[in-house]
Amino acid sequence: MPFKSLEELRIACLSLPAGNEEARSMAAQHQQVLTKPRGSLGRLEDIAGWLACWQGRDMPKLDRVKVIVFAGNHGVTAQGVSAYPAEVTVQMVANFANGGAAINQLARVADAELDVIPLDLDRPTGDFTREPAMDEAAFLAAVSTGYDAVDENLDLVCFGEMGIGNTTPAAAIATALFGGDVQGWTGRGTGVDDAGLGRKVAAIEAGLKRHGAIIADPLKAAAALGGRELAAILGATLAARHRNVPVLLDGFVCTAAVAPLTRLHPQGLAHTLAAHVSAEAGHQRLLEALALAPLLDLGMRLGEGSGACLAVNILRSALECHARMASFAEAGVSES
Amino acid sequence: MPFKSLEELRIACLSLPAGNEEARSMAAQHQQVLTKPRGSLGRLEDIAGWLACWQGRDMPKLDRVKVIVFAGNHGVTAQGVSAYPAEVTVQMVANFANGGAAINQLARVADAELDVIPLDLDRPTGDFTREPAMDEAAFLAAVSTGYDAVDENLDLVCFGEMGIGNTTPAAAIATALFGGDVQGWTGRGTGVDDAGLGRKVAAIEAGLKRHGAIIADPLKAAAALGGRELAAILGATLAARHRNVPVLLDGFVCTAAVAPLTRLHPQGLAHTLAAHVSAEAGHQRLLEALALAPLLDLGMRLGEGSGACLAVNILRSALECHARMASFAEAGVSES
Repeated sequence: MPFKSLEELRIACLSLPAGNEEARSMAAQHQQVLTKPRGSLGRLEDIAGWLACWQGRDMPKLDRVKVIVFAGNHGVTAQGVSAYPAEVTVQMVANFANGGAAINQLARVADAELDVIPLDLDRPTGDFTREPAMDEAAFLAAVSTGYDAVDENLDLVCFGEMGIGNTTPAAAIATALFGGDVQGWTGRGTGVDDAGLGRKVAAIEAGLKRHGAIIADPLKAAAALGGRELAAILGATLAARHRNVPVLLDGFVCTAAVAPLTRLHPQGLAHTLAAHVSAEAGHQRLLEALALAPLLDLGMRLGEGSGACLAVNILRSALECHARMASFAEAGVSES
Repeated sequence: MPFKSLEELRIACLSLPAGNEEARSMAAQHQQVLTKPRGSLGRLEDIAGWLACWQGRDMPKLDRVKVIVFAGNHGVTAQGVSAYPAEVTVQMVANFANGGAAINQLARVADAELDVIPLDLDRPTGDFTREPAMDEAAFLAAVSTGYDAVDENLDLVCFGEMGIGNTTPAAAIATALFGGDVQGWTGRGTGVDDAGLGRKVAAIEAGLKRHGAIIADPLKAAAALGGRELAAILGATLAARHRNVPVLLDGFVCTAAVAPLTRLHPQGLAHTLAAHVSAEAGHQRLLEALALAPLLDLGMRLGEGSGACLAVNILRSALECHARMASFAEAGVSES
């Protein structure tokens, strides 16, 4: 287990490797000679530079792409915060294993491996309105599982989550980290009605009140208000940074899960791209708070890493243009 | 040649087949039973229904996808409207043939065939500030070439264009069809400076003045102010409608090229999706005028069908989810 104490984890979050800005700069120079008006590939050009920077080579690759979906269960579902019963988490993990979920299809189109990592589904986290969601040991175990899931040979990794009720801890973490009204961070998740939305807001307000003494600390907030799959995504995103693997973030839960990294280090999410902005209320606001510009805006709100996976072929397209287009000189094309 | 007179073409534009709304409705019903919260795949669900409607089957497919790039040269380049010399059109067609352009890489990632169709590159259209860009015969020939390029066995087609100077005819057509200041429709294309932008606006104003007597007719506007590759895209988009092939539109030039179809028939572009909104000034406004909601917004402004091609894997993702996800009953997942 890589982290045996909160202080060991904190040190790993504070001592982050910088990106390779020389590789980014070389990639940008290479873009200038390719047979297109300069800048005309828009964000595809930036993506090539970003991949170069965080893979640490001016000619990046995307040979090995993985989607890792972490699953967890949540004690706060006792407060009636979800439209679905908690047993759906286990049922959907079986659906992933059988190839029947959206993420199975999306990963195939993206030519990405899919790993699904269930985290103690038979032991939901504590109901954060009454107790911490996780004690320090449980939190560190989940973070460590995520950290160990990221192989240094990957070229890109997408993180997703499955956990009935988990937009509630996500909104709680967002409120704890960035302040503002709970209502502004809280959405309908898989589709709660107005009464369910009211129960979500009330539960989050109760959780913030109960744990108010400690949640100025981003890691303690993630433990007290979060969930195992969120903690695992935090650990996995941290591992990706230390192992030179760029990260595609998915929706609201995934983004909230990694937000503590920027509260500990101003460049804590520089190796990540927001794949999309979801339809879940609060995601747009959270991306703005983190200064992340999403690649896609397709009204999705499924989780599972679905939005992240959908962006993989945009990155492949950017990379193929970068690596394989002819230069003006090679093609004998006149410049402007 | 399918169209021997403007009236034959007009009749083909007025007598459009409707989509198969029953197939769209069956696709929407099928989406309701798949293992995800209803509506949570956002626009991917709409895409599945749109493909069903325009392919005319509730389980659509994307086995055969083609990108067709039409290339033309423009007499109006004599007015100094482009940052690149006109010979670049021919040079880029050679680059397409050699596999060195952006669209070659993007088509490969999209698993799409690429056809490039040069249209009389050694005979530029007339300079529309002085004469019609095309007489009726030249216009019908280009429209017919486009019409004949679309095979009825295709499952989806993307249209692109290459033609130094062609954002000038595109802006001229947009102004003729939708009115408003020329400045509002005119952008920097491949990157003209302020003086070049001023020359574009002046050329378009001169063209609108010279041809003002006839350009209330959308087809005559497309002939007098347009270009061969734009006319071909119009013909190809019309053919796709008559042959049940859904269309992905690319950027400003492509969208302006097909805009006459909606002036002739209110549902003239119902079988098309706007793949992206480009960075070319005027494209956002044109999409709004046509009530088309773009799938992507990545700051691209290259043409070649690049934006359209980038959206193909989003459609594939939508379709794979539609066709291969398990239902709640099949997977034994509890409903809300």
